[in-house]
Amino acid sequence: MAMIPRALQGVIEAFGQLPGVGPRTAERYAYYLLRSDPSKAVNVAETLGRLHKSVAYCPKTFALMESGQKLSPLYTNPKRDKKLVAVVADPFDIVALEKTNVFRGTYHVLGGLVSPIEGIGPENLRISELIKRIDDDRVKELILATNASVEGESTALLITQAVENKRLKVTRLARGLPVGVDLEYADQITLTKALEGRQRW
Amino acid sequence: MAMIPRALQGVIEAFGQLPGVGPRTAERYAYYLLRSDPSKAVNVAETLGRLHKSVAYCPKTFALMESGQKLSPLYTNPKRDKKLVAVVADPFDIVALEKTNVFRGTYHVLGGLVSPIEGIGPENLRISELIKRIDDDRVKELILATNASVEGESTALLITQAVENKRLKVTRLARGLPVGVDLEYADQITLTKALEGRQRW
Repeated sequence: MAMIPRALQGVIEAFGQLPGVGPRTAERYAYYLLRSDPSKAVNVAETLGRLHKSVAYCPKTFALMESGQKLSPLYTNPKRDKKLVAVVADPFDIVALEKTNVFRGTYHVLGGLVSPIEGIGPENLRISELIKRIDDDRVKELILATNASVEGESTALLITQAVENKRLKVTRLARGLPVGVDLEYADQITLTKALEGRQRW
Repeated sequence: MAMIPRALQGVIEAFGQLPGVGPRTAERYAYYLLRSDPSKAVNVAETLGRLHKSVAYCPKTFALMESGQKLSPLYTNPKRDKKLVAVVADPFDIVALEKTNVFRGTYHVLGGLVSPIEGIGPENLRISELIKRIDDDRVKELILATNASVEGESTALLITQAVENKRLKVTRLARGLPVGVDLEYADQITLTKALEGRQRW
């Protein structure tokens, strides 16, 4: 479009690559930055320019870490129990679990979930690295902390099968009523899981 | 949060400044770029870094233009009728009108709409510049092409009053049924406007 300057068009196209961002939203972001003080766009540019250089993946847990570090503090911290490993799909799942302040084990980031639609198979997940860790660190319990979705369940099943011949406990995050949600609004599957997983009071 | 590297946190905060982007969405954007090829983040960074340097506002129409240009081609193009001016709120409204391929006049970008809630008063819009253009270019018709919203209507009214003593025709984009929409789904106000503005067939 000739009436949109090339640089602005470039920003619109760049934003349009972000997940879930359509042309209208990309336009809104770009135009917002154009109207704002130039320092704002420059700040976004600079942080983005540093992103890949400054962030690294821990070679043990595959959690995110500063690029200067050799291993994630989530792994090296002596207060962490290396024999207890929570298996998660993405690095941000770690943030959610850490916020609970009750987990004292370490993590293993799979890097996704099995999804035939998105073309993600077992070979795309860090399962062999997990198996190696189980042996190296003599892991006693694996907590499968994947989503309660079809992909999350399939991935959990896959890992359960992959560690079948290991001597360790495999657990799964409890399914049930979310705290603060009325029973009448819970869906049938959640309620079924809540019933199945009922505990002595 | 200690488990999120600083550079990633910086990108999340930068995206969080964009309109309508909450912390979860900002995280999703940032993590998407982190997982993608580094060239993608660098590309976004570079386009953003160029944005303000490469884009300028035409001093006559306030349309966007390349920073090397003195005036927007929308104004200087001899095929454009300078005596017919469409008054719009934002530069992107020009894109929408240009797509119709039927408008041969020029534009005047107000830079927003009157909005007491957002603290935008008449003094924040480019109304005096419009008055000057009306005199300089001997404008014959002003098409008020603002939104059919409260702010759009107030701004249109404001401009009508501001040019009261000028000898020119002031028109407003027609309100009525959007093409392709069933009459039964049209809201009352739109239908009222469609009735009022009915035309001989």
